[in-house]
Amino acid sequence: MSKNTQPLSDIEIARNATMQPIQDIADKLEIPSDHILNYGKHRAKISREYVEAQSDRPNGKLILVAGITPTAAGEGKTTTSVGMGDGLSRIGKKVAICLREPSLGPCFGMKGGAAGGGYSQVVPMEEINLHFNGDFHAIGAAHNLLSAMIDNHIYWGNELELDCRKVTWGRVMDMNDRSLRQLTVGLGGVFNGYPRTDHFDITVASEVMAIFCLANDLKDLQERLGNIIVGTTRDGKDIYARDIKAVGAMTALLKDAIQPNLVQTMEGTPCFIHGGPFANIAHGCNSVIATKTALKHADYVITEAGFGADLGAEKFFDIKMRKSGLKPDAAVIVATIRALKIHGGAEQDKLGEENLKALEDGFVNLKRHVSNTRKFGVPVMVALNSFSADTQAERDLLLGLCEQAGISAVESDHWARGGEGAEALSQAVVDMIDNEPANFEFLYNAQLSLWGKTRTIAQELYGAEDIIADKKVRNQFEALEAKHGDLPICIAKTPLSFSTDPLLKGAPSGHVVPIREVRLSAGAGFVVVVCGDIMTMPGLPRKPAAESIYVREDGEIEGLF
Amino acid sequence: MSKNTQPLSDIEIARNATMQPIQDIADKLEIPSDHILNYGKHRAKISREYVEAQSDRPNGKLILVAGITPTAAGEGKTTTSVGMGDGLSRIGKKVAICLREPSLGPCFGMKGGAAGGGYSQVVPMEEINLHFNGDFHAIGAAHNLLSAMIDNHIYWGNELELDCRKVTWGRVMDMNDRSLRQLTVGLGGVFNGYPRTDHFDITVASEVMAIFCLANDLKDLQERLGNIIVGTTRDGKDIYARDIKAVGAMTALLKDAIQPNLVQTMEGTPCFIHGGPFANIAHGCNSVIATKTALKHADYVITEAGFGADLGAEKFFDIKMRKSGLKPDAAVIVATIRALKIHGGAEQDKLGEENLKALEDGFVNLKRHVSNTRKFGVPVMVALNSFSADTQAERDLLLGLCEQAGISAVESDHWARGGEGAEALSQAVVDMIDNEPANFEFLYNAQLSLWGKTRTIAQELYGAEDIIADKKVRNQFEALEAKHGDLPICIAKTPLSFSTDPLLKGAPSGHVVPIREVRLSAGAGFVVVVCGDIMTMPGLPRKPAAESIYVREDGEIEGLF
Repeated sequence: MSKNTQPLSDIEIARNATMQPIQDIADKLEIPSDHILNYGKHRAKISREYVEAQSDRPNGKLILVAGITPTAAGEGKTTTSVGMGDGLSRIGKKVAICLREPSLGPCFGMKGGAAGGGYSQVVPMEEINLHFNGDFHAIGAAHNLLSAMIDNHIYWGNELELDCRKVTWGRVMDMNDRSLRQLTVGLGGVFNGYPRTDHFDITVASEVMAIFCLANDLKDLQERLGNIIVGTTRDGKDIYARDIKAVGAMTALLKDAIQPNLVQTMEGTPCFIHGGPFANIAHGCNSVIATKTALKHADYVITEAGFGADLGAEKFFDIKMRKSGLKPDAAVIVATIRALKIHGGAEQDKLGEENLKALEDGFVNLKRHVSNTRKFGVPVMVALNSFSADTQAERDLLLGLCEQAGISAVESDHWARGGEGAEALSQAVVDMIDNEPANFEFLYNAQLSLWGKTRTIAQELYGAEDIIADKKVRNQFEALEAKHGDLPICIAKTPLSFSTDPLLKGAPSGHVVPIREVRLSAGAGFVVVVCGDIMTMPGLPRKPAAESIYVREDGEIEGLF
Repeated sequence: MSKNTQPLSDIEIARNATMQPIQDIADKLEIPSDHILNYGKHRAKISREYVEAQSDRPNGKLILVAGITPTAAGEGKTTTSVGMGDGLSRIGKKVAICLREPSLGPCFGMKGGAAGGGYSQVVPMEEINLHFNGDFHAIGAAHNLLSAMIDNHIYWGNELELDCRKVTWGRVMDMNDRSLRQLTVGLGGVFNGYPRTDHFDITVASEVMAIFCLANDLKDLQERLGNIIVGTTRDGKDIYARDIKAVGAMTALLKDAIQPNLVQTMEGTPCFIHGGPFANIAHGCNSVIATKTALKHADYVITEAGFGADLGAEKFFDIKMRKSGLKPDAAVIVATIRALKIHGGAEQDKLGEENLKALEDGFVNLKRHVSNTRKFGVPVMVALNSFSADTQAERDLLLGLCEQAGISAVESDHWARGGEGAEALSQAVVDMIDNEPANFEFLYNAQLSLWGKTRTIAQELYGAEDIIADKKVRNQFEALEAKHGDLPICIAKTPLSFSTDPLLKGAPSGHVVPIREVRLSAGAGFVVVVCGDIMTMPGLPRKPAAESIYVREDGEIEGLF
């Protein structure tokens, strides 16, 4: 293949983009320049004072982009969010996109960048992927300050009588580092504290991250931080972050970070990228503050939820909407023919071949996600994210299957053509919002028991027959019920299947969801129900992406993606 | 005392300051606005492309501010640096100040802020003290990426045959956290790596920090990072960061951080604050890149060295000047009457009382620092940093003692009066530079043996009779001599005395300096000679400052200082 026909990599496409000064992007949202805090030429934060003063303005329309059950083939939720933002801009709408911030860890592992792809990207991509405006570092510092103050409290006499075997608050680092998953700290003698078992999570798994993303303002943030439970006394009394007196300093560390970040797509559409909690042990959406800021300044706001809609959209609706008081106006479910073929039994290495049978069989996955999402009273549009290998017969088949099932679906070619490729999709979503007003409802009532809420999710969305747990876990449910029974549920399970078995593709039914553990995130305000192995500190692969990254003589970074 | 007469705290004074837009500050140095990367309204970085393109411009005059041996009474090196910057501005000079960035850890412990004090402060103080422009977080991430890649290399088969008992590269966190001083990582089974002993240092103690501050440009940075030794094989072969293939990604993480940060004093004098290595196991000066940038844009550049001049100035001259090729034009030694009285035997709680005897006895400390500094061929001015409790008799005595000893000294009242209070000092230093051209020389020749260099420092500057070490340490010297014998020495000893006994005040002589350990910082390019207990991970005090920090309703931070 000659150099001319070699497709450009994401980083090459991003580097060729002409960026507008960030003030020009803010002008599109009519945010006064006094309140734009520049971070370099092409990144900004919007001042907290300004953000908090906009609460009386009306909201634009909120559009959630979610996906089918993820496969190795990828679906392109971020790319579609970006493409639709550009598409809406092109058809004359005032629009803002809200995305999560990427984590450093996966960047050096194998995941690659998290700012879209092809001609639907957010820029400046290198800066967004490396440090960005420092939010994750601030969150890590706030988390670890609390950790240090806990051990310091124990060291100086332990007035609160924390049981050092029952300190649940670990430490965090924004790195994929398996060696830190389990460790013994405080070794080396009296001057180094009390030896005890500890663990590091990756920063995105920190409860501080979840709190940061659910807080409505700085005051709310400070209150929620105080509610973090760091461990218990020997007789089981909860000890809170506020007991450790860490909360004011943690808030001071987060004061600037809490201001939403503004960047742009390659076509100049405003994009807020702010916060990025794990989508398993947390809720997996960008910050409430960014979403609210976007809604106050744009007529259409596109945002994204992690994993498939069974996890991402459910948490977006039942956790983020509940905590923020916001309501969604529409949902877009992203699907690809390649991924649906995997759900229908096709093999990864044969996705280049037409396979109508597999596509038809795999369609059940999409259908389930659409019907799940409709249960929240939200109108749904399917975005068929085009790949060049899709055949005409496959595309006709999928669109036909959607039509038969009463599902609106539009093809979108934004990866290759940017906003132009997403115009039809964007117009269809606008029309849907005009013609089909949402009647949003949470899936479950907050007054249901924690067990009842969990069962509702499993039965209604996962197609499960029931949930099960051993006596110890059921006792945990019971113990939490008294004091925290009104909290929403955050399910941590494999994203790779509706069931808890990652190999069960398509739309399995009648399975049972075994619950392994329950964890309280009292600061974030949800109960994490763990179904399966959940990794909160990834490791690096045999050949980490980091080995190929370098800085060229001219200062450009190579190998990042 | 009524509220009107209550003196304002540093943070209150700083908050009352009217800041100029950072572009106006850059204009004073004639740095084109295209190359100013704003970080909020009052902080900026200067673009790397621009900085690296200025190398042919002539340098301004370089003035080092160092101190007498520190005591609990404080000397005020940073405050004097800031005051002199403002003083030089007031007498019509084009000036820039170069300081170190503060570390988060001490902020939450008991040290308080590190941006000057009284009416000689750098602003915005809260932002400079918390996160600033993210450099320390970037340095921490680069350090810990290497750590993760080391353990990952071992995990995936250990092709380099690193002996996991001999990995010397630990991990870092920008926190005072004694529990992390010694730990066991890699616990929990096969999937979590190999169990081994490890340690965390505070980020400022990272060799990456020292490298960052000594690098002349990005390319030099990348090369030096590659030279970091991370451990050895079982048979003692050094393994380098470049063998781990971490260097490109580490450089990518540091690409933005390496750009010098520009802020302002309360009087609008330009101030570069960039880098902040430990002054014991590293050299304790701000970055070479910032100092060079300042010298290319100002006629007078004031910079500061950590601890007393025996450590700070010596390392500034013998390490920073050697690595950068720069030459100093003058040195200012900061002294206070209070501190000299402690050196003369006065007690801390009686410093409010006039004590001419103690002052006269303590003068030897100042005298030694002046004569030490003159050994480098640099003209010296003493800045007598005024305190309101100083009596007229004490001031007369000290100035008289200086005159008798042939030492130029000027009183300076910048803490209370800002630049106006430092005008006389500033004019005196300008006159000294005009009349007494420096004839700078390193204290020792690079070709001396490592042992010989160490002895020269101890005998010439500390007044020691000799240095001693046991066989094991002497063998270490010998082993390093062959391959690294040409490196300069970085002495890690107590800053509280010329000797290694922190209780020996004044100017002890004839003592012996026992060497406990030698460490090679091959990337930074010096050999650390450890004389005494050196703490590279501080702990928090019984009542950490963090407990008193909070964010007010209006968003202002209280309790930080």
